[in-house]
Amino acid sequence: MESAQTSAAGVARKVSEYMLRHDRASGHLGITIESVDEGHAVLAMTVRNDMLNGLDILHGGVTFTLADSAFAFACNSRNRKTVALNCTVSFVAAAREGDVLTATAREVSLSGRTGIYDVSVRNQKDELIAEFRGTSYGTSSPVI
Amino acid sequence: MESAQTSAAGVARKVSEYMLRHDRASGHLGITIESVDEGHAVLAMTVRNDMLNGLDILHGGVTFTLADSAFAFACNSRNRKTVALNCTVSFVAAAREGDVLTATAREVSLSGRTGIYDVSVRNQKDELIAEFRGTSYGTSSPVI
Amino acid sequence: MESAQTSAAGVARKVSEYMLRHDRASGHLGITIESVDEGHAVLAMTVRNDMLNGLDILHGGVTFTLADSAFAFACNSRNRKTVALNCTVSFVAAAREGDVLTATAREVSLSGRTGIYDVSVRNQKDELIAEFRGTSYGTSSPVI
Amino acid sequence: MESAQTSAAGVARKVSEYMLRHDRASGHLGITIESVDEGHAVLAMTVRNDMLNGLDILHGGVTFTLADSAFAFACNSRNRKTVALNCTVSFVAAAREGDVLTATAREVSLSGRTGIYDVSVRNQKDELIAEFRGTSYGTSSPVI
Repeated sequence: MESAQTSAAGVARKVSEYMLRHDRASGHLGITIESVDEGHAVLAMTVRNDMLNGLDILHGGVTFTLADSAFAFACNSRNRKTVALNCTVSFVAAAREGDVLTATAREVSLSGRTGIYDVSVRNQKDELIAEFRGTSYGTSSPVI
Repeated sequence: MESAQTSAAGVARKVSEYMLRHDRASGHLGITIESVDEGHAVLAMTVRNDMLNGLDILHGGVTFTLADSAFAFACNSRNRKTVALNCTVSFVAAAREGDVLTATAREVSLSGRTGIYDVSVRNQKDELIAEFRGTSYGTSSPVI
Repeated sequence: MESAQTSAAGVARKVSEYMLRHDRASGHLGITIESVDEGHAVLAMTVRNDMLNGLDILHGGVTFTLADSAFAFACNSRNRKTVALNCTVSFVAAAREGDVLTATAREVSLSGRTGIYDVSVRNQKDELIAEFRGTSYGTSSPVI
Repeated sequence: MESAQTSAAGVARKVSEYMLRHDRASGHLGITIESVDEGHAVLAMTVRNDMLNGLDILHGGVTFTLADSAFAFACNSRNRKTVALNCTVSFVAAAREGDVLTATAREVSLSGRTGIYDVSVRNQKDELIAEFRGTSYGTSSPVI
């Protein structure tokens, strides 16, 4: 019988928890893991005052960091150390203090060493805040 | 006689200083303005331990935030409030604790409301860390 | 009672047929309209020998042109003349002579003048060939 | 003494001429090689009536194809077979029938298997028409 520890979803969870625990940069953003599985990750984050830019809206760099973390957890979910080659992000609507954002990453393709992942960032009203696409490159090492 | 306050470079400096002062998200990154002018901006940042990810290298979200700030200062430099439509970033090499990064933004084109800005992020050895391209959209409001 | 000519889908079809008829560049590619509606378009194209590159696979420029046309029909579907600001395309797998490609465009967001459209290009086995994302900018003129 | 056939520039020229000769898709566009060297390529093309879209301006797919060819010649210039992972293109100004376009590709970075190439497409007045960025992935095979 397959236990949660050895199933695909169990591996994905262990890897993402390891990555989040060791990630000092995103740690102070209060990001939490809602769910994670092979090629998928859903993260949540509440917008705080110290995340705002000079226009009193969420800084694009913080939006990017949230989406990038979801991308990282999705593309490392098989415990193969995988890095970002490039990313694009489209900013659709502003997020404001108190908003609860959800970043949902899904694997669009994975062939050989390279993969494509789309991440949608939405607020508590399910309004689209940003749309992110990352291209990944898999190394030969495990994450943990 | 044109004073520093009213020259193009003077306006660019006043706007960027205003933006940096009110930007809580990038404020804690210790970003400094090296130079700024119409359509241009050069920023610097030292990589600290609390900016690293689980692999002990600079988090891509922090690299993005530095480049995005240089982009913002360059595209707002004429005191026209301008927002990012979308951005792409290519990660070329890893940055490590203690590295001093410089983000240099230049205006590739500006026609009507939309502009293109390229930002190169380099370390203290002039090695390319990341290459960023942002597309901007100008509103009808001033920044300050 | 609303007729096909005045319904949203009817407008979308009339605009896309007009655009395809006047488009000399994509005309010789044998592109056909499978379906079109507000914010959506599905096109088909058969890969011919004269579309191949030096490696005997479909030229990326032809793949792009097919996806770009689907994007154009989707973002002009409300009869508002709309142009491309920028596009990204990821090449996932090679297409070969005789393959029948389908490009499916969907509207990810439309707010104010700017929109985001994703286009998937798949072959007759439903394998992903390329993934395209276009950012549009709406003018104040009608298409027809 | 190094001959033109064995120098870096000579290899680049032989590879690009081979690629152009075997490329049926871009062959009919009348693209010519202005210059080519390690990591660089300059191509030219005159805009013909059969390259126009329904708005009587150059089709974005043709602009992309020209830039993509310059990218391909630059990234294959060392005779290592190299493919495109993804590309972005920003459309800056319209090109019209009779315009003579020049696509200039330069290597922004090359590390390991992946490279970044920027291609500027300009008209006979040196006005920017489009700005293209391609990410390449090198295989283990030679081109010729």
